[in-house]
Amino acid sequence: MRAFELDPRLARDTELVESLGLCQLRMMKDSRWPWFMLVPQRNDVSELFQLTPLDQALLTFETNMVAAALKKATGAEKINVAAIGNIVRQLHVHIVARSDGDPNWPGPIWGYGQAEPYEDAAKQSLIKSLTENLVS
Amino acid sequence: MRAFELDPRLARDTELVESLGLCQLRMMKDSRWPWFMLVPQRNDVSELFQLTPLDQALLTFETNMVAAALKKATGAEKINVAAIGNIVRQLHVHIVARSDGDPNWPGPIWGYGQAEPYEDAAKQSLIKSLTENLVS
Repeated sequence: MRAFELDPRLARDTELVESLGLCQLRMMKDSRWPWFMLVPQRNDVSELFQLTPLDQALLTFETNMVAAALKKATGAEKINVAAIGNIVRQLHVHIVARSDGDPNWPGPIWGYGQAEPYEDAAKQSLIKSLTENLVS
Repeated sequence: MRAFELDPRLARDTELVESLGLCQLRMMKDSRWPWFMLVPQRNDVSELFQLTPLDQALLTFETNMVAAALKKATGAEKINVAAIGNIVRQLHVHIVARSDGDPNWPGPIWGYGQAEPYEDAAKQSLIKSLTENLVS
């Protein structure tokens, strides 16, 4: 079995936070929303239902763990969870914190405007806050 | 425990296809995309992670069963699966068949344009095709 290969566009648009049991937890390089991504470390899978049943259960567990932590870390009104993949076909799950008044609220974030880079301090602060809530 | 109460907007915008173990499988009244929805029959839940672990597992199972059936039924390029809920807070999972050239492809469907009603024959044909693939 060959080693997991991350899609080049995901590699470019996100950065690694940490590796969980199944997925890489990655952060979008876009400060407009607290926007993370889970990428199952499996090659040649584009749809959730192509994962094995065990991997489906692991992905559900990791998704909900990260979503709950992101809610705690941000106090957001709503967590958006989505596996879309119309452009990048490698399976990836978006986990995004949304609040009234954020860009394009209450519409979707995908395809909206241009990414805005993080200030390093803000980025590190969000990562710290998320990962602290992951372990609690 | 009070009986499950469907959000009035979901009731208006969708119609019941059938009840699965946890969820109502519903179809959006919008012919632009093959667009279904799973609504867990649980009151007062807006986030995936608020479901019990068993319900999370059931929802994963039902989501992937419907997504796989929708892929077979439509031959779509990509199935989009999303729990957003910025407007309607009752937890609901969108399962949508997307293909190159459909409205707003490869962008998201949410918040795009206006719903277009189905011709009854087209609606019944899609429901039949989906549910046949659900049982196989």
